[in-house]
Amino acid sequence: MTKIIMCGCNGHMGQVITGICKADPDTEIVAGIDVYDGIKNDYPVFAKASDCHVDADVIIDFSNVSVVDDLLDFSVERQIPVVLCTTGLSEEQLAHVKTASEKIAVLKSANMSLGINTLLKLLAEAAKVLAPAGFDMEIVEKHHNQKLDAPSGTALALADSMNEALEEDYNYKYDRSQERKKREKYEIGIQAVRGGNIVGEHEVIFAGTDEVITFKHTATSKAVFGKGAVEAAKYLAGKPAGMYDMSNVIEA
Amino acid sequence: MTKIIMCGCNGHMGQVITGICKADPDTEIVAGIDVYDGIKNDYPVFAKASDCHVDADVIIDFSNVSVVDDLLDFSVERQIPVVLCTTGLSEEQLAHVKTASEKIAVLKSANMSLGINTLLKLLAEAAKVLAPAGFDMEIVEKHHNQKLDAPSGTALALADSMNEALEEDYNYKYDRSQERKKREKYEIGIQAVRGGNIVGEHEVIFAGTDEVITFKHTATSKAVFGKGAVEAAKYLAGKPAGMYDMSNVIEA
Amino acid sequence: MTKIIMCGCNGHMGQVITGICKADPDTEIVAGIDVYDGIKNDYPVFAKASDCHVDADVIIDFSNVSVVDDLLDFSVERQIPVVLCTTGLSEEQLAHVKTASEKIAVLKSANMSLGINTLLKLLAEAAKVLAPAGFDMEIVEKHHNQKLDAPSGTALALADSMNEALEEDYNYKYDRSQERKKREKYEIGIQAVRGGNIVGEHEVIFAGTDEVITFKHTATSKAVFGKGAVEAAKYLAGKPAGMYDMSNVIEA
Amino acid sequence: MTKIIMCGCNGHMGQVITGICKADPDTEIVAGIDVYDGIKNDYPVFAKASDCHVDADVIIDFSNVSVVDDLLDFSVERQIPVVLCTTGLSEEQLAHVKTASEKIAVLKSANMSLGINTLLKLLAEAAKVLAPAGFDMEIVEKHHNQKLDAPSGTALALADSMNEALEEDYNYKYDRSQERKKREKYEIGIQAVRGGNIVGEHEVIFAGTDEVITFKHTATSKAVFGKGAVEAAKYLAGKPAGMYDMSNVIEA
Repeated sequence: MTKIIMCGCNGHMGQVITGICKADPDTEIVAGIDVYDGIKNDYPVFAKASDCHVDADVIIDFSNVSVVDDLLDFSVERQIPVVLCTTGLSEEQLAHVKTASEKIAVLKSANMSLGINTLLKLLAEAAKVLAPAGFDMEIVEKHHNQKLDAPSGTALALADSMNEALEEDYNYKYDRSQERKKREKYEIGIQAVRGGNIVGEHEVIFAGTDEVITFKHTATSKAVFGKGAVEAAKYLAGKPAGMYDMSNVIEA
Repeated sequence: MTKIIMCGCNGHMGQVITGICKADPDTEIVAGIDVYDGIKNDYPVFAKASDCHVDADVIIDFSNVSVVDDLLDFSVERQIPVVLCTTGLSEEQLAHVKTASEKIAVLKSANMSLGINTLLKLLAEAAKVLAPAGFDMEIVEKHHNQKLDAPSGTALALADSMNEALEEDYNYKYDRSQERKKREKYEIGIQAVRGGNIVGEHEVIFAGTDEVITFKHTATSKAVFGKGAVEAAKYLAGKPAGMYDMSNVIEA
Repeated sequence: MTKIIMCGCNGHMGQVITGICKADPDTEIVAGIDVYDGIKNDYPVFAKASDCHVDADVIIDFSNVSVVDDLLDFSVERQIPVVLCTTGLSEEQLAHVKTASEKIAVLKSANMSLGINTLLKLLAEAAKVLAPAGFDMEIVEKHHNQKLDAPSGTALALADSMNEALEEDYNYKYDRSQERKKREKYEIGIQAVRGGNIVGEHEVIFAGTDEVITFKHTATSKAVFGKGAVEAAKYLAGKPAGMYDMSNVIEA
Repeated sequence: MTKIIMCGCNGHMGQVITGICKADPDTEIVAGIDVYDGIKNDYPVFAKASDCHVDADVIIDFSNVSVVDDLLDFSVERQIPVVLCTTGLSEEQLAHVKTASEKIAVLKSANMSLGINTLLKLLAEAAKVLAPAGFDMEIVEKHHNQKLDAPSGTALALADSMNEALEEDYNYKYDRSQERKKREKYEIGIQAVRGGNIVGEHEVIFAGTDEVITFKHTATSKAVFGKGAVEAAKYLAGKPAGMYDMSNVIEA
């Protein structure tokens, strides 16, 4: 039985994960952290991490950037591994994550789904064959109209996956409307579409001469991310300090 | 037999139209205008419009923005209708087009294909039903890596078609990466993808709650624009002064 | 307040609609009909229609083909309008529906979403312009791996909408693998894809020379059909005998 | 300089390859084989293989199934390697190909493009991860309205690539309209869409719970297959007897 502290428990994903854990005999949420207290849960909820004195094996974080620093300090102090699902962290926060990972296990993935994490691997391979053959790489992501950040953390992770597989360094291009010029060879365009309650769609395009290859991932329910986060939590409980990501969980 | 002056005759579209007219017994290109003289054509080619003294029924222009003003003056002076296919005109040039249309027939369409012009009409209808029901509208266009302007003139025309059909005024949003905020209700996102030799793809997305409707047009050869331009030229020859567009040709 | 009898109340869609009505102050489910009794509802549930003696303004049916005949007899006898959402009816059952509609109001639509019903209208218009210009029409639908019938009732409705708008009679082609021959001009291919828990995707393709136009509808939650059914129920309560469909609801 | 005999030289692909070889200083078409003699080529054309006495390093075949047996006999007799691009061969013809490959080098690929051959490899990997995790695999292919066979040889090759990577044996399902039943676990649906002059589009769908991954290849000009065939011809000239495919060319 993995005992979980759910940070951001009263947000949408926090509630999704609450439901998944209730149905999963191998996990139990023992406490929640959330400033918002308008939802009644089966576990105690604390306004901030430092108020929470409940024992746990692992923390799942699906909160927001303003909470992440406090949570990392708490995790280190309490020596509890943390599955960090919040995206849009600043450079400083990423440095904080790295420091924390020297003392506890931190699993950070831009996207918790099996599908995206499989794509990350295949895209690196595809880029190695297609980019040298002259194919241009572009990404279009689509999300609901309430999403604050653009492009999505997942889109950036997909771009990084291709970029790191290639010898040249590719720039990311978010806007082509402000200049009249041809596309640069070593760039990856990343475009963000927002509308309705689209859960998440990522399309990676390799455009060559007379042929185009497209890799597309569509999530139709946030449950897919919740399930991934719970699997990650089970995996991370008891692990030594270090940085982990979903590829560790998939290969385990 | 419609006698045509082809402005931009030695560019890619100029050569496509040259081929279409050669195969079409009802049209003949009697002269070309192009600064580039490296291609051998069956008709005389002049470096600029003012050098051309050949008689014609109509001009087709697929050149570039630097040539358009000269061409408009020439068309007015010679009283020859003009099918204007060059996109990316400045505000001043659009005003020039309007002035010219008081003296000659000018047909200007962002896109010469039957498909796009059918979409323009259907999108206006769709917007009237779906926007009031809470659907968000977004556009993604894809073109080859040599295209200078972004977004495409066609993408803007599709957005205008929906915008004009609705009571509120929608802003066009080209870049979401520079701020952290939710999507505005009265905006239409327009994103440009560039890669390979993609001829042209336009996708209009209506994203609602739990459902998404997408209208997509794919051109797989520039011949489709050339055919439309030639049909437009046949239509425009002999027409009185005024502004025309492809909807006039389709309905004729 | 519209009083509703929910036929098929313990199926997935029955439960979705139960949730929608609970949240909607203008509707109340007063009874359910379902052979399966393993779910606890706030309203009484009867194994068959003839057992149900509760008063109601309208019936919503999301059951299956084996129940439809009984339900129609019950609706006529009790003089209660019925919103019929079950698909895959036999020719005989369709005749039964027609007979019933002479005595009560029957609303039958292959698909209850606003999006699909908007598409039905636009496709008829598109077909009138594009089919005479030589565009071929094809449909691909995608649904979850538990769906029994193929193609979907919605795919057939989309095909019918185009077919009825055109002068020629188009045949529907479900399988091209059994013969070596070119596509016939007056046919509409309809292909069914099944996998995972895809809620429902319908793509209508107009393929011409050098251009393709695609209309695509994606439902990401069955709630979208439930909402449509409840709107239809509100509309149908109190209406005179006759056949109705969702276009009546949308235009109301 | 690779000397090529082009079988099917007066068909569409034969002419495309003729153009490619004319522009490529490393290849020369020294003879053609075609029953149709209405096109004027720079090389001699023979009605059947047995009439052709010109010396060559390799044969490219883009003809049709009725010609393949004669061509194989000719290739063996003359000891010339053959790049076999004709699809839709019968079981008997496939056996004939195998026998021939014991005496000469035969390269046979369902599709000659770099993109498709990269996909073949990635799909095998994707299937190994996703199929055991419960994802269903389906294929939709789209081609022009003149294509005789369905599904395309490429679609079958994509299915085979996944099938061979998996432990279970998957059946291919071409038509779901003739029965009312749920999808079988160990099947791959393959659907064929036909319309306009679509060059070739292949979409492979992995549909899981709440997520779908799609791999799509679009060819926008047949030149892409021609280029691949010419590269294959250069590679195959001088090779020992055996069966080869495009993966050998890509890895070379």
